[in-house]
Amino acid sequence: MLYLTHEDIHDPFFYVDTGTKKLIFLNNLEIDAFNERNQTVALKAVAVGQLLEEARALSGDTALSNKLALILFRKYDVLHKPIAVSTHFPLAMAEYLRSHGATLVIKEPFILEREQKSVEEVAHIRESIRRTCTAFECIEDIIRESAIKDDFLLFQGRTLTSEYIKKRVDEILIGQDMENSEGLIISCGQHAAMPHHRGAGFIRPNQTIVCDIFPRNRTSGYFADMTRTYVKGSPTKQVRKMYNAVRDSQDEAIKVLKSGMLAKDAYAVSVKVIQDAGFDVGERGYMHGLGHGLGLDVHEVPFLNQHTTAVLKVGNIVTVEPGLYYPEWGGVRLEDVVVVTENSCENLTNYERELIIP
Amino acid sequence: MLYLTHEDIHDPFFYVDTGTKKLIFLNNLEIDAFNERNQTVALKAVAVGQLLEEARALSGDTALSNKLALILFRKYDVLHKPIAVSTHFPLAMAEYLRSHGATLVIKEPFILEREQKSVEEVAHIRESIRRTCTAFECIEDIIRESAIKDDFLLFQGRTLTSEYIKKRVDEILIGQDMENSEGLIISCGQHAAMPHHRGAGFIRPNQTIVCDIFPRNRTSGYFADMTRTYVKGSPTKQVRKMYNAVRDSQDEAIKVLKSGMLAKDAYAVSVKVIQDAGFDVGERGYMHGLGHGLGLDVHEVPFLNQHTTAVLKVGNIVTVEPGLYYPEWGGVRLEDVVVVTENSCENLTNYERELIIP
Repeated sequence: MLYLTHEDIHDPFFYVDTGTKKLIFLNNLEIDAFNERNQTVALKAVAVGQLLEEARALSGDTALSNKLALILFRKYDVLHKPIAVSTHFPLAMAEYLRSHGATLVIKEPFILEREQKSVEEVAHIRESIRRTCTAFECIEDIIRESAIKDDFLLFQGRTLTSEYIKKRVDEILIGQDMENSEGLIISCGQHAAMPHHRGAGFIRPNQTIVCDIFPRNRTSGYFADMTRTYVKGSPTKQVRKMYNAVRDSQDEAIKVLKSGMLAKDAYAVSVKVIQDAGFDVGERGYMHGLGHGLGLDVHEVPFLNQHTTAVLKVGNIVTVEPGLYYPEWGGVRLEDVVVVTENSCENLTNYERELIIP
Repeated sequence: MLYLTHEDIHDPFFYVDTGTKKLIFLNNLEIDAFNERNQTVALKAVAVGQLLEEARALSGDTALSNKLALILFRKYDVLHKPIAVSTHFPLAMAEYLRSHGATLVIKEPFILEREQKSVEEVAHIRESIRRTCTAFECIEDIIRESAIKDDFLLFQGRTLTSEYIKKRVDEILIGQDMENSEGLIISCGQHAAMPHHRGAGFIRPNQTIVCDIFPRNRTSGYFADMTRTYVKGSPTKQVRKMYNAVRDSQDEAIKVLKSGMLAKDAYAVSVKVIQDAGFDVGERGYMHGLGHGLGLDVHEVPFLNQHTTAVLKVGNIVTVEPGLYYPEWGGVRLEDVVVVTENSCENLTNYERELIIP
């Protein structure tokens, strides 16, 4: 809905594209504020006040929103035409509309254009990433300024924890209108060896610290997604080897990414580097795909893994994030975001990769 | 899903209650982290690794998640029993499962118990409100420390804006693990007269400033919702009258709220006070309902307005938020949250209401 209307409207609303008109139906509390902000000429707001009264007058035990949908379909004469809806259209509304003669046809992808980002969208994501980089600068500062004391890090006199770093990251990002709406990962040691562990408790010296941050710009709605892995002190030889393999895997994947390529072939390139370095792929080691599309959703098409049949297109924005996970050694993941171009790709994450923080 | 699992899991997952077992199906990246955190003895996590392979082997052009649902239904022998789903169950998944013999029955409300909060839930919401109060203390401090200069407020040498206050509120709340996931309202003057205007631009002296904050605790998931209206300097006589009417309306509604009462009757009590004070109800003046349920959703049942047939129950947690809106005078809204008890209600918002900030 945000993609179609360019407006972040918090109350539920209906949007109908009749082919000739784009209509957004808002309640009386929302419509003035919307009209003041709306920049999309083709988009007309319609107040639902009177329509809601008509919906309330309909008999039947179903939610008012379902009745309102029926009233809208009747009023705009779309009830007896096939109506495209998304895979996630609510079942109860679908059943009600169909029982009154509507023909709903699931369209997937619902908005095909979302897969190929416009120049404006690329700029939004680039800006989200730029702001996210400031959080990584802060993390590196905290770790650098921490002192190793036995099996802990001391920062400003207190033992450093995952929770403290997350709180600092939250604060830095919210000040730039970026929210960690999907959470964030600051995980160390055993936790870092579980790819989706959010991290908790003490940050340890000489162990891998995986920092994965994927905030959303609250104004544009576009996500960033970025991961760096650090060690305070001295990584083991094995961790150095893991880090180099992941870095090389990421480099090689970014080198080959371009439009027309099978997404699974990009994944295969990243796999080969990992395997050539002597590491596992599958149940252990490199346990996940190479990356995913990024936009108004933090995970969207195309996905880069062994299962997909997707072909990369100009304007795809995808993460490139190989990783290695071993309970006995820790976890390493590096994640940048690239935009696919005709013959290559451009890395939108302009930020160094350094394992060791002295 | 959060209510059923007590865990904030970000990747999509299936949850099945067979009547004898509560099962949550997680991918290999999530399951270890979940098992480490899970406190619910009755809830068992099942890894979908092998099941996903079976789902991939199914023919047919539909999302893998739909195929996985079918595999789960078959494996747990629920395919030929009626299966309760929510009103918002995704249409594409429903069509796929039904085409393979599933009987899906929409259940509404899907989780009836959510309407009546447990002691633990009341404590969560009380805590969310307590933290939200600190944001109001900050807003009052900012306005108090601002100086009136012509038609502006000067705070620390700069003209005070809605955006500045919102940023400070974001920062104060995020430091307490509270996120404004649904936005927030800091609106002044004409904007304050539009109930859902989020507010933008300069904060003016001698005009109403509506502050409506509804953040979510990121750990518990429970929302707060609270509104205060301020004037820096001197309110007009009309605004004083509006404020007193809204305050009295809120007081009277809180006085009568108790279990067994019709929600529409509580609304009617709030309406009468507004009308007795000479103000309008409907298209202008008091333009919205009295309140709504609050919990893991910022708006949930029961709703307190003229249309509902809801009867209040012990453990309902609802907002009580009458308001008055006139483009020529501004807007006034006051919002507290109460928990309904046997013979009365308890106000969970322990915070003063003062219109004028000197």
